[in-house]
Amino acid sequence: MAEFVAELVGTMILIIFGAGVVAGVSLRQSKGEGAGWIAISLGWGFAVALGVYVSGTVSDAHLNPAVTLAFATIGEFPWAQVPGYIIGQLIGAFLGAVVVFLHYYPHWKNTPDPSTKLGVFATGPAIRHLTSNFFSEFIGTAVLIFGLLAIGANTFSDGLNPLIVGVLIAAIGLSLGGPTGYAINPARDLGPRLAHAILPIDKKGPSDWAYAWVPIFGPIAGGIVGAVLFTLVF
Amino acid sequence: MAEFVAELVGTMILIIFGAGVVAGVSLRQSKGEGAGWIAISLGWGFAVALGVYVSGTVSDAHLNPAVTLAFATIGEFPWAQVPGYIIGQLIGAFLGAVVVFLHYYPHWKNTPDPSTKLGVFATGPAIRHLTSNFFSEFIGTAVLIFGLLAIGANTFSDGLNPLIVGVLIAAIGLSLGGPTGYAINPARDLGPRLAHAILPIDKKGPSDWAYAWVPIFGPIAGGIVGAVLFTLVF
Amino acid sequence: MAEFVAELVGTMILIIFGAGVVAGVSLRQSKGEGAGWIAISLGWGFAVALGVYVSGTVSDAHLNPAVTLAFATIGEFPWAQVPGYIIGQLIGAFLGAVVVFLHYYPHWKNTPDPSTKLGVFATGPAIRHLTSNFFSEFIGTAVLIFGLLAIGANTFSDGLNPLIVGVLIAAIGLSLGGPTGYAINPARDLGPRLAHAILPIDKKGPSDWAYAWVPIFGPIAGGIVGAVLFTLVF
Amino acid sequence: MAEFVAELVGTMILIIFGAGVVAGVSLRQSKGEGAGWIAISLGWGFAVALGVYVSGTVSDAHLNPAVTLAFATIGEFPWAQVPGYIIGQLIGAFLGAVVVFLHYYPHWKNTPDPSTKLGVFATGPAIRHLTSNFFSEFIGTAVLIFGLLAIGANTFSDGLNPLIVGVLIAAIGLSLGGPTGYAINPARDLGPRLAHAILPIDKKGPSDWAYAWVPIFGPIAGGIVGAVLFTLVF
Repeated sequence: MAEFVAELVGTMILIIFGAGVVAGVSLRQSKGEGAGWIAISLGWGFAVALGVYVSGTVSDAHLNPAVTLAFATIGEFPWAQVPGYIIGQLIGAFLGAVVVFLHYYPHWKNTPDPSTKLGVFATGPAIRHLTSNFFSEFIGTAVLIFGLLAIGANTFSDGLNPLIVGVLIAAIGLSLGGPTGYAINPARDLGPRLAHAILPIDKKGPSDWAYAWVPIFGPIAGGIVGAVLFTLVF
Repeated sequence: MAEFVAELVGTMILIIFGAGVVAGVSLRQSKGEGAGWIAISLGWGFAVALGVYVSGTVSDAHLNPAVTLAFATIGEFPWAQVPGYIIGQLIGAFLGAVVVFLHYYPHWKNTPDPSTKLGVFATGPAIRHLTSNFFSEFIGTAVLIFGLLAIGANTFSDGLNPLIVGVLIAAIGLSLGGPTGYAINPARDLGPRLAHAILPIDKKGPSDWAYAWVPIFGPIAGGIVGAVLFTLVF
Repeated sequence: MAEFVAELVGTMILIIFGAGVVAGVSLRQSKGEGAGWIAISLGWGFAVALGVYVSGTVSDAHLNPAVTLAFATIGEFPWAQVPGYIIGQLIGAFLGAVVVFLHYYPHWKNTPDPSTKLGVFATGPAIRHLTSNFFSEFIGTAVLIFGLLAIGANTFSDGLNPLIVGVLIAAIGLSLGGPTGYAINPARDLGPRLAHAILPIDKKGPSDWAYAWVPIFGPIAGGIVGAVLFTLVF
Repeated sequence: MAEFVAELVGTMILIIFGAGVVAGVSLRQSKGEGAGWIAISLGWGFAVALGVYVSGTVSDAHLNPAVTLAFATIGEFPWAQVPGYIIGQLIGAFLGAVVVFLHYYPHWKNTPDPSTKLGVFATGPAIRHLTSNFFSEFIGTAVLIFGLLAIGANTFSDGLNPLIVGVLIAAIGLSLGGPTGYAINPARDLGPRLAHAILPIDKKGPSDWAYAWVPIFGPIAGGIVGAVLFTLVF
């Protein structure tokens, strides 16, 4: 139960900062409007680092169903705990998106473009080409899991690990985020997309459910393959 | 007494760097003019980290009445020391603003817009909507306190804590600073606003006292709620 | 054999992030398009730090033939292992470039300029002046090796070393990357240039083999001189 | 003698990265042209951190006559070593500027504005007002010394100190660099200004010796006052 709450709260923090930075950079009249891709990449890096600091003393700070499933697949995490972790992550991601909606309340009305508003909540492809988009999410998450396992193996950097994980996320954003906006985490996309569909956002457009399977199954497949590859190589 | 001085000096350092980065980015002909929101967010993150390094060996390095009140509320800080801490923080914030005024002396005359000049000292809303603005300060500070308590609980990262707190502040700026410019600290706003009202700044406008209660009471309320929530959850 | 694999995988990670950030910043319609030189410098710094975290528990994490040769020259690395390290680095760099090609698949067709596409894979001079370009690669790599040896001598910062190496790379990018795009690593340039020549990239131009010797021999010469100078001075 | 060499080499590294980042951001056709004030502030922060890593195992890594004089004034450094340190710093700064001149060799001819070229070597005021400019250098250096003494007192962050010093420098750049370009170090300004006067830079203008006393005496005065204040306060 404590781990369920930790995953929920940690993922909520992750989304408050992660969806928050997209809101801050893209919503009209926000003081951060136009701060660009570096702000978004650093912001998501900070988001994950802080989510890990918040939850890491209680749970394993996965904050990501693709991580939970990949670690379970290679025997680094008990399958019995998988459902609880994933449900906690999804609820936390949904709640985090609600907080961002409230935090930026006066800005929704002032932002005319519906796809900008959806972009605060859910990822979308730069060029819609679902096979390639799936593959980008696959690669991004394989690299993520590979990196997480490598960082975890560096016992000499214990106290730094959450920050190094943040560096890994920021690097994935800068280097691999271009084609799809790097969900690399099914909960990060599905929870806020659900919030987008439900919340009374002024003049919102559709939630693009046709794309929603890509940031769910791409990361899950990539995560498992990345974890297996790491185990084979090292 | 030593702790009073440490809070005063630490908050002065915080405002020298914090108000300084806004001056550097927004005053006319400053070499940093136009460096934008990332500069401001990183600058405030560095400001807090350095304020903590300066004061943290003597006081608890709150540098923020919302932190002091929140920690006292949950029994992590003695109420008897609260007044001394807060007075030190306010004086330090005022003095830091005076230093920034002097440091950028030739630039005030060259900057025509009075609201740009006020923005160096005090926060203001992107969209004036006081209920929402209050709520944004409330959320930002709740997340701040939640994060501070989580970071403090990570005993394995002792020597890093001031830097991680700086990351937390930079993340709040990037992700949650858009609607109000994130005071999240009553002293950070009130001290420099007072300095703006008193100092002989060339062609300054009003100090917008009508807004001043928002960055005082939003952070105090949010800080207390954040601290209580953290205690309940963990 | 384990070290060969570690150098291969570490250099592959290095190029996935390094060539990836150039792709993300320069290919048309990428979400990171136009993020600029800071993104590229930070991205390469992160790339090296993560390559070192991935390989550093198994090999010495050179990921760079100029480093391997320089360390061998001053007796810090056995000559017998030099060929295996360099072959692993070249194969890894080639494979990393293939991953970036696949990851950004829909973007090649949408990017009209062939030199932008080559720039994702290989370095090129800002002003073509081969003597000066050689000398810039020489200086950049001499500073790199000098810095690596100095960081390695700081035993008090063990767990941090990969991050500090990342700072060194980011600093070389910001400060010394202007004239040639800082290969400072023969494998980083040759492996991806080969990939550019072989891969079916839509409307690609020539691979500029006339320049290819500069980022091979400049770094090798500079690295050896930097290492010898460090040994003489300290 | 070893300390003299360490100060010389450390300051040379500092200027290679510091003058280098200004060259990379401001010289025509440099790949980093236009990267702006954040690049410059981070670049100088990295420059100092790396200078400290290079020299810090041998000397005290002052790399700055204002630091040496301030520490001697409060009895933290023997006066007998002051001349050797300062001479080493000046020679190192001069040599670092020569390296940057050579590294960016083809770019001098292509950069028409002489003041841009001088700006790579020496600082200059945003608004020429010598009293204020002196005072800005005074404040910047007082804050620098105050910060250095505070960071040095944090024994719990030993291995991190060079990085934290880099953060301090980057913060001074972002927050206090606007009025004068923050020399905060007499050697950093005088050595490269001398190099500018002597080197055969294509179509260079005057070296602005009328301003040169400001970044010498402002930092020295501010450093001493900052150190004395720190001793009085803590």
